[in-house]
Amino acid sequence: MLAVNELIRRKRDGQAISGPEMEELIGAYANGEVPDYQMAAWLMAVYFQGLSRGETVAMTRAMLNSGATVDMADVPGIKVDKHSSGGVGDKTSLVLLPLVAAAGVPVVKMAGRGLGHTGGTIDKLESVPGLRTELTPQEVVTVAERVGLCIAAQSKQLVPADGRLYALRDVTATVESVPLIAASIMSKKIAAGADRILLDVKTGKGAFAQDMDTARQLAELMVSIGAELGRTTAALVTGMDQPLGLAVGNALEMHEAVMTLRGAGPADVRELCLALGALMLAMGGQETDLAKGRAKLKELLSSGQALTVLRKMVAAQGGDTGFIEAPERLLSAPVRLPLVAAETGYVSEVHARIVGDCAVRLGAGRMQKGTKVDHRVGILLHKKVGAPVMRGELLAEVHAAQPDRGQEALPLLKDAFVITAQPPQPAALVRGFVTPDGFSRQLPKEFKV
Amino acid sequence: MLAVNELIRRKRDGQAISGPEMEELIGAYANGEVPDYQMAAWLMAVYFQGLSRGETVAMTRAMLNSGATVDMADVPGIKVDKHSSGGVGDKTSLVLLPLVAAAGVPVVKMAGRGLGHTGGTIDKLESVPGLRTELTPQEVVTVAERVGLCIAAQSKQLVPADGRLYALRDVTATVESVPLIAASIMSKKIAAGADRILLDVKTGKGAFAQDMDTARQLAELMVSIGAELGRTTAALVTGMDQPLGLAVGNALEMHEAVMTLRGAGPADVRELCLALGALMLAMGGQETDLAKGRAKLKELLSSGQALTVLRKMVAAQGGDTGFIEAPERLLSAPVRLPLVAAETGYVSEVHARIVGDCAVRLGAGRMQKGTKVDHRVGILLHKKVGAPVMRGELLAEVHAAQPDRGQEALPLLKDAFVITAQPPQPAALVRGFVTPDGFSRQLPKEFKV
Repeated sequence: MLAVNELIRRKRDGQAISGPEMEELIGAYANGEVPDYQMAAWLMAVYFQGLSRGETVAMTRAMLNSGATVDMADVPGIKVDKHSSGGVGDKTSLVLLPLVAAAGVPVVKMAGRGLGHTGGTIDKLESVPGLRTELTPQEVVTVAERVGLCIAAQSKQLVPADGRLYALRDVTATVESVPLIAASIMSKKIAAGADRILLDVKTGKGAFAQDMDTARQLAELMVSIGAELGRTTAALVTGMDQPLGLAVGNALEMHEAVMTLRGAGPADVRELCLALGALMLAMGGQETDLAKGRAKLKELLSSGQALTVLRKMVAAQGGDTGFIEAPERLLSAPVRLPLVAAETGYVSEVHARIVGDCAVRLGAGRMQKGTKVDHRVGILLHKKVGAPVMRGELLAEVHAAQPDRGQEALPLLKDAFVITAQPPQPAALVRGFVTPDGFSRQLPKEFKV
Repeated sequence: MLAVNELIRRKRDGQAISGPEMEELIGAYANGEVPDYQMAAWLMAVYFQGLSRGETVAMTRAMLNSGATVDMADVPGIKVDKHSSGGVGDKTSLVLLPLVAAAGVPVVKMAGRGLGHTGGTIDKLESVPGLRTELTPQEVVTVAERVGLCIAAQSKQLVPADGRLYALRDVTATVESVPLIAASIMSKKIAAGADRILLDVKTGKGAFAQDMDTARQLAELMVSIGAELGRTTAALVTGMDQPLGLAVGNALEMHEAVMTLRGAGPADVRELCLALGALMLAMGGQETDLAKGRAKLKELLSSGQALTVLRKMVAAQGGDTGFIEAPERLLSAPVRLPLVAAETGYVSEVHARIVGDCAVRLGAGRMQKGTKVDHRVGILLHKKVGAPVMRGELLAEVHAAQPDRGQEALPLLKDAFVITAQPPQPAALVRGFVTPDGFSRQLPKEFKV
């Protein structure tokens, strides 16, 4: 019999847990042989004592072994997956994936729903009428083969141990742990079957990793887990102090994604998609020179080819493609309330976490799994950090389902904005790059996997 | 609704929990409204972050409020309870309580069963044929009034929150926490209804508090909880590096207790009973001069009056009193195996924890609640720390139920003994004394409550 109490005590006392012990513990928990209360105590001990790199790899492997993995052998080419550690207004996948698919890198994305203050790609996609994201493995392969791109909801059969562990961590204050986050993300990414993985690790006020050190640590750990488990992994570390782009909320973000694919999106969304996209082209074996990759991607945006891939994917997944030509249809919240500046100066902060919480309150997200979201509602920013603003000028718009819910959100949203007399120091969007070879502040000229 | 997740997070982050929050948390756990997995995570967070004095008092109060308390108003006089934090060979209660009862201090003791390497007074008492320890509250009061002494098993109605919490701590590696131990002990002591409480906090290799600092911290915390909750409390800190006395095992210890009450017990058992006894006389308002108290107690031992009280109590609780005159009847294990010294020198260690574990393996104790114990088995030491020993001389005797179990115990028991060429430094039995006024290394001449 597994001496779980002893494994809790050892982790509590900062002693090592071997690979086979870790696999037995996680396997027995996934099977229901280890009760939640022992796992909860173990998770809290991990919160305080951490896990070594070896322990984190063993935990990831054990989580992987708890369920099925996707077989993507039938999809030709080198499959590259991209994952963001979670941000506010992060609609990158909706732009980036059609873009790199248009460049010839096959993309099968198993995406999640939003939880807490960050949104999920599946919720955003489902703002398109008729679009199905719950696909069978066969449907996923068929769409991917035909279109070169498929975005589907992650199956519950994939990494069931993560499902149980995440639900437990959520109610026991053990979410915020670098190794637990790394094992959770990497087990799902590896199970999803891509050959190579590109991570976008967020750092700043709207991210788990509030400081650069934590973000770098998380990125390095995930990259090394990928290497240990045979999937080449790289990570960008990018800023998440303010929301990405201007739109926060499902249909609002879908709208912004289409605008970006048309060449008219906000600069930061476009920039992040080009940076991530060039790396995906390199990882997919298409173009190791990142500048050339960027140029190719810009071309695919301006020519409309990337948008065409999105249209095809939406059609293949049963969705109404009308929003591609008429994205304004996505802006359908019945109530819109303005937030105006109370003083003149410069926007020096748009607190991502507060904006995210505000969107959740409006109904755009969920605090508990299983809750329905209202795709119409959210926040549309009119000013971002660095912008000069006049007293009375529009800072943001609340898109609400009812007048009272919109009114409730306004004071909260107001707190997200800080206006100062002096302009703030500009902060870089891309703050670091991690490969199995190490960390660098900037992207290299060439990236060869 | 109680935001338990938030209370876990606050404790995890080292933030304070208010009195009302603590009472709500513990109360809801006792009611089954808070699930084990959340409490397990909270307990592990407490293990790492501790509890403030105020939080520990609030937790103790909340545990008290989870059930009934004993009403001892019908027993005349100032009731003084004594509690040991748990040791190996600690039969003190079996000697001390009849002794102070003989001196006129009424004693009602709610005692526990052994768990892990330490024994429990109830198990020891039950080695007397026929003796009942599961008594109704009315029976307790009747025996106490008639004899001046009653030792009963603690009712499960008393502090049910502690029962649930202890069972959970036992399987989640969260037993070893000073504030959790303090709250557990003090809630039970206060619920048991005595007016004043004397604690014997053990320190050393066989105790939870392996070092003096931890023991002092535990003693001071419990004394201050007592003061906050209206029960004057004092604590002796005493050594538990080697077992107390020579006997470890239920009937063996009962035998040693009777021998001590007859004036023929080991020096350390006698000394500890006199030290604790003099304090109980002072706390019971009988004699504030501790030297006079000791003299009175010695007299009660040599006159046989203390033994008479034990005989009366055993009779009142339905037990066969034959062992009082013929204590050798208690020595009934069918197998006795000798452990002899492998070299000549001085006994410099008899590791209490190892001897305790050895007795448990023989069947004298239990590793899980609910297991039956074999009252006959255990260890009888022949040499204690400081004794000179010749190669081949008897160090200890194993009392076993079957030859093979006895043989299994011998190598383990051998590891408990360390023999050195030089005699060890003598260590004091009484190492500290804590009252609401503070800590001192030695007992005062007078002690007035």
